[in-house]
Amino acid sequence: MEKMKLKLLYSDLKADIDIIEKELEVALNSSSHLINDASLHLLQAGGKRIRPVFVLISAKFGQYNIDQVKNIAVPLELIHSASLVHDDVIDDSDLRRGRHTVKAQWNNRVAMYTGDFIFARALEYVTSIENPRVHQILAKTMVEICNGEVIQIEDKFRNNQNIKDYFRRIKRKTALLIESSCELGAVVSGLDDKNVRHLKQFGYFVGMSYQIVDDILDFTATDKELGKPAGSDLLQGNITLPILLLKDHPTISKFIESAANGDVTEQQRLEMLHIVRKSDAIKQSISISNHYLRKALKEVDALPNHPMKKKLRDIALFIGKRKF
Amino acid sequence: MEKMKLKLLYSDLKADIDIIEKELEVALNSSSHLINDASLHLLQAGGKRIRPVFVLISAKFGQYNIDQVKNIAVPLELIHSASLVHDDVIDDSDLRRGRHTVKAQWNNRVAMYTGDFIFARALEYVTSIENPRVHQILAKTMVEICNGEVIQIEDKFRNNQNIKDYFRRIKRKTALLIESSCELGAVVSGLDDKNVRHLKQFGYFVGMSYQIVDDILDFTATDKELGKPAGSDLLQGNITLPILLLKDHPTISKFIESAANGDVTEQQRLEMLHIVRKSDAIKQSISISNHYLRKALKEVDALPNHPMKKKLRDIALFIGKRKF
Repeated sequence: MEKMKLKLLYSDLKADIDIIEKELEVALNSSSHLINDASLHLLQAGGKRIRPVFVLISAKFGQYNIDQVKNIAVPLELIHSASLVHDDVIDDSDLRRGRHTVKAQWNNRVAMYTGDFIFARALEYVTSIENPRVHQILAKTMVEICNGEVIQIEDKFRNNQNIKDYFRRIKRKTALLIESSCELGAVVSGLDDKNVRHLKQFGYFVGMSYQIVDDILDFTATDKELGKPAGSDLLQGNITLPILLLKDHPTISKFIESAANGDVTEQQRLEMLHIVRKSDAIKQSISISNHYLRKALKEVDALPNHPMKKKLRDIALFIGKRKF
Repeated sequence: MEKMKLKLLYSDLKADIDIIEKELEVALNSSSHLINDASLHLLQAGGKRIRPVFVLISAKFGQYNIDQVKNIAVPLELIHSASLVHDDVIDDSDLRRGRHTVKAQWNNRVAMYTGDFIFARALEYVTSIENPRVHQILAKTMVEICNGEVIQIEDKFRNNQNIKDYFRRIKRKTALLIESSCELGAVVSGLDDKNVRHLKQFGYFVGMSYQIVDDILDFTATDKELGKPAGSDLLQGNITLPILLLKDHPTISKFIESAANGDVTEQQRLEMLHIVRKSDAIKQSISISNHYLRKALKEVDALPNHPMKKKLRDIALFIGKRKF
């Protein structure tokens, strides 16, 4: 149902999304069977491809050229994919979108070098790009994604953290890559600085909202909708917005301690979910997400008249209200 | 004894090597205890620091400025260190220079993210560099190092490979980073194009010789000298020059098959070492290494008169004849 909605939203971009999909397959081709299998396993798991889609839509506001645009969209999706494979190792995740992760299907070693391989392919794309501005933005994005991974490790199970730490983390984990997708789509299609800035800001705000919704869903959605057990984030030590808003709740603090020691029972997980779901923290988190969403929509308003403005709004609203 | 010789060779650069050593420690500082411990474990294992040393020496031929030079030397050593941590996961190596590897002391997961962390720090240095030529060379080097890791995986235990494949591999694994060290030292100190080229070529040839000697030592040195069991490379599926020169030796082919299946006995390892050591393949490999060394020395001859010319020659000769 939700996936249908997204398909509908993407429908008039389908031909170009297919081109990018094919290019991704070519980029991930390796003479090693194992690398091939693991990369394709990951690629076929799909995902929403929102980064490439934002590149396409942003580029539509200027001189749209799919051959140019795909060279931006592909490395961005590759960087995202590479970070997912390594994240699953760091978080010790066995499931993602209802499928086994690379580290679960094979092992940590294969996941490490599959991620390295995909990142190397992305780096290759990046260095082949001649426009120094594009190059600079992509390189900076890569640095921040790598740093984001490190910060995520450093903050794991850390109890003296606050909401500012959380925002710092999701900015690097999600918002920056979506911001860069919009910015780069706009830059390569020759938009003026003012509109590049609006699209870039739009991407940042949507990205923040996107990750907050993701972090809410981890508590509120069903295991089936998530394709993994609800509450996985906290089990893995990732302390997200709803938990920070519930700060100092004694049962939750004890839960985090138990999770850090790896001895959480199913009973405790359900109890934790119950506390979070009935608390105000979810409502407050939704309201913070909506705050970012409103800021994103304001940036759309500031863009010149164009049929793609409605598309940006629709996707932003879908992201804010989605259930997966 | 060997280490004494190296120390002597480095003696008049010691103050600046110490500056780089301190900068490396700063670069690897993280708020995560685990990342800190693992990075320092790696840093303290030492190594010859030949990449920073080649940056320093090459820079001495021009307008030498340690504050500039260290910003090149540090990311180069970081890229090298990051690749070592991941290589040990790929090769399943428990020992390096007589110490436990990160993956052995902790596990594959910690080794993965320690490598990612160090690489992220290197990326950060690279993007902060303003000179576009330096930036371009470093970025290209990173791509090749990442690709080198992938090629190493793809070629593992592969029996239909030839000497050309081997050269392609060691070029990316070792020679390119040493080449870039020399080139970048020369570029930042403002050498003219002709001399930049000589130093760059010198680095490439020395790097090829360096890796060939490494691959020979893996068969000819003692376990104690190596700080790991002799023949480890082949056990891990890395088919190096001496083996390619011995191609189709039935016992060796059978050994590779057994190694791929992970069932090699100590008896078989010693037998394999005996065959390689008494064969002509070692002599032939030394002769190929010397061929590269001679080419390296020719590049030194072409450089303008400078006290550092003798230093380059001495280090090249040390590398060619070293026992560790």
